Amino acid sequence: MKKIGVGLLGCGVVGSAVFRNLSENAELIAARCGARFEVKKIAVRDPSRKRDGIPAALFTASAEEAVAAPGVDIVVELMGGEDAALSALLSAIRNKKHVVTANKLLLAKKGELVFAEASTAGVAIGFEASVAGAVPIIRTLKEAVASGNIRSLFGIINGTSNYILTSMMESGVSFSAALREAQRLGYAEADPTFDVEGIDAAHKLTILATLAFGAPVDLDAVYIEGISRLAPDDFHFARQFGRVIKLLATARLDGGRLDVRVHPAMVAATRPIARVDGVTNAVELDVSDAGRLMLIGPGAGGDATASAVIADMVDIARDMIAGSVGRISPLGFLPGTRKQFPLKPIDDVESGYYLRFTVDDIPGVLAKMAGILGDNGISIDSVIQKGRSGDPVPLVILTHGAREKSVRDAIGKIDTLPSTRAKTMLIRLEDGD
Amino acid sequence: MKKIGVGLLGCGVVGSAVFRNLSENAELIAARCGARFEVKKIAVRDPSRKRDGIPAALFTASAEEAVAAPGVDIVVELMGGEDAALSALLSAIRNKKHVVTANKLLLAKKGELVFAEASTAGVAIGFEASVAGAVPIIRTLKEAVASGNIRSLFGIINGTSNYILTSMMESGVSFSAALREAQRLGYAEADPTFDVEGIDAAHKLTILATLAFGAPVDLDAVYIEGISRLAPDDFHFARQFGRVIKLLATARLDGGRLDVRVHPAMVAATRPIARVDGVTNAVELDVSDAGRLMLIGPGAGGDATASAVIADMVDIARDMIAGSVGRISPLGFLPGTRKQFPLKPIDDVESGYYLRFTVDDIPGVLAKMAGILGDNGISIDSVIQKGRSGDPVPLVILTHGAREKSVRDAIGKIDTLPSTRAKTMLIRLEDGD
Repeated sequence: MKKIGVGLLGCGVVGSAVFRNLSENAELIAARCGARFEVKKIAVRDPSRKRDGIPAALFTASAEEAVAAPGVDIVVELMGGEDAALSALLSAIRNKKHVVTANKLLLAKKGELVFAEASTAGVAIGFEASVAGAVPIIRTLKEAVASGNIRSLFGIINGTSNYILTSMMESGVSFSAALREAQRLGYAEADPTFDVEGIDAAHKLTILATLAFGAPVDLDAVYIEGISRLAPDDFHFARQFGRVIKLLATARLDGGRLDVRVHPAMVAATRPIARVDGVTNAVELDVSDAGRLMLIGPGAGGDATASAVIADMVDIARDMIAGSVGRISPLGFLPGTRKQFPLKPIDDVESGYYLRFTVDDIPGVLAKMAGILGDNGISIDSVIQKGRSGDPVPLVILTHGAREKSVRDAIGKIDTLPSTRAKTMLIRLEDGD
Repeated sequence: MKKIGVGLLGCGVVGSAVFRNLSENAELIAARCGARFEVKKIAVRDPSRKRDGIPAALFTASAEEAVAAPGVDIVVELMGGEDAALSALLSAIRNKKHVVTANKLLLAKKGELVFAEASTAGVAIGFEASVAGAVPIIRTLKEAVASGNIRSLFGIINGTSNYILTSMMESGVSFSAALREAQRLGYAEADPTFDVEGIDAAHKLTILATLAFGAPVDLDAVYIEGISRLAPDDFHFARQFGRVIKLLATARLDGGRLDVRVHPAMVAATRPIARVDGVTNAVELDVSDAGRLMLIGPGAGGDATASAVIADMVDIARDMIAGSVGRISPLGFLPGTRKQFPLKPIDDVESGYYLRFTVDDIPGVLAKMAGILGDNGISIDSVIQKGRSGDPVPLVILTHGAREKSVRDAIGKIDTLPSTRAKTMLIRLEDGD
């Protein structure tokens, strides 16, 4: 039986699950791939801390030592962060170690560098765990989509924000109350910025879009809006329109231009993705031949993420045994065949819009606003003017498809009217093309 | 650029889509795998029939000729049926050709033989298209599930029956009316037996369970019930209980015994699988470490099925180029590591039950029936006695978890009561463990 040595960088929730499951399920893993994994060294911040079930002798404070330890074939990077992780990964690659990483921030920012170095060194790089935890979306993009063009990709790929949105939708609480509850349950970090402002989702979307379109996608190209400005009213009105609000990561190739965005979107409640609640993740692909494929599953958690990490390790083991490392390019396309797409700026996006105005409850306000929308070529689908009594009141308009620039121009004008009492809330409708 | 020759057996909806997409997307496929596919021969029943866009010279009436044509590396079997397909597949394998097949009937009945022959010959066998069309469930079972045990598997894997059930649920029509409509739209065949009686789903379940549990599963072991006995009343009552009716294919490893079944089941309307409507397919896996994974997508159709066929061909191309044919065993487990599980007979299954009795509308009937259920150790969850007036009337009982044998015994007694006017309808509740 082939033995494969592992250097583990990081031993938090995911790292310790990887260690435990490699050992507890060694028999099963060996039956599947014909190899046994043996963790040789684990780099952690504090090697003196005792960790249940892991021999103290395995720990070191030095990532370098874990990478270079004798017998290490695969380096598994679960330390997170940017600089230290990058230098550890590159050191592993340059030392001809195969690597597996769950580090979406690093791949979103430095993926092109890391993948190029891995190709040059002739080592494998697995990163299934970097997006959507246990959901095999990377594998699907690289292997299951073979003959078709991906037209669009929709994802709920941040569990924290989806948990918060689900609470707000179900119980009508405010964003800050839902966030506090998520923090209490361990679903949100003390500083939730990355999750609730869409940044983490943008990292993951960058990785997915890079694979989906066979082209480099710059993280800076992703339009990002978070969920912190959403109010209970927005969920209330969404329900009236038969919709739910989700933080959607979307990527489309539209007339040869790349449209990549993370923002709250109103989705018809009847679509399966509308039923993806709590910390669950989902990705929907629209493929020219395969049609609409959707993958749903746990987006986080030690065991779930470890399962994706170990699947990558098993892949590498199968390649080591068959002598076929590099049989699939890290990004699914052969070098030299990747494309380059110009960006579609957010101003050019066309969509239906939910607009929640906050206005004085006086006659003529709707007429005035409808006039401004009309002047900007925006046609109205429906209006909800009822709502609570009192002053100011919410006035909600759903538009037909319109250009974002026109909508923003119109809102700019409406927001300066004396009858407008607060900044207008804009949420894009997502009807899945 | 590597050239790979293809012998195509069958040129119906799927075969012609494979031919067309291989040619139309040749560039894209080559960018993904570094190979170009060239169809050398196509075996069809009537080679004289003209087919748009396919050179007449490619056709032959002889499967043997398509298998043995010069330059053929991969034989793609899309002819369906049993005997002729088996002999063509075995001939291809013995001639050291790699094979790809969408033939679920054949694999369910003769899979062990075909896989063993492929292993002996050292050729690859791809069969992603045999279950759930474009949905990459075979790949997920063989590759994404690496360290975990699969505890259970739920599938909606027959589009025809799901289309009929969706119609019955949405518009209250009878089974025969829904079937006629499905036939009119081309979703059901003239003889719909395989689809509506659960046989096709049982074929696919046999394949999935074989992969999921790493053990041979005998088609005869699958308990099968179709949808033709369902009445509009059942959908009406399902709705009252917040449930929908789906033809579920389920497989569980329960106390070391294999429980594999295809039958209509009532599922909570809030579960994502309840939203899988029309001809869409879905498979949900419960994996010990990965958690609940669900894959949804088109279960049939030329392009969708062709996409799974071509993904298998691309896999084989990658292995041919890397010299790694056989890097993954056809069934995901190394030979010699597969297990053998005894069967759990349907009598031993425990479940909640929906029981629709047809009874005289006279006092004391419910008491009598409740007494019989109680005598058999079955406790009642809820009762709906209202409903239409007239005689006989439906009386619906939802039970708590009970053993199937006890429920059948009780029904046996109830069905002989003078107040019982028709055979009792039994539908299992599926609450996903």
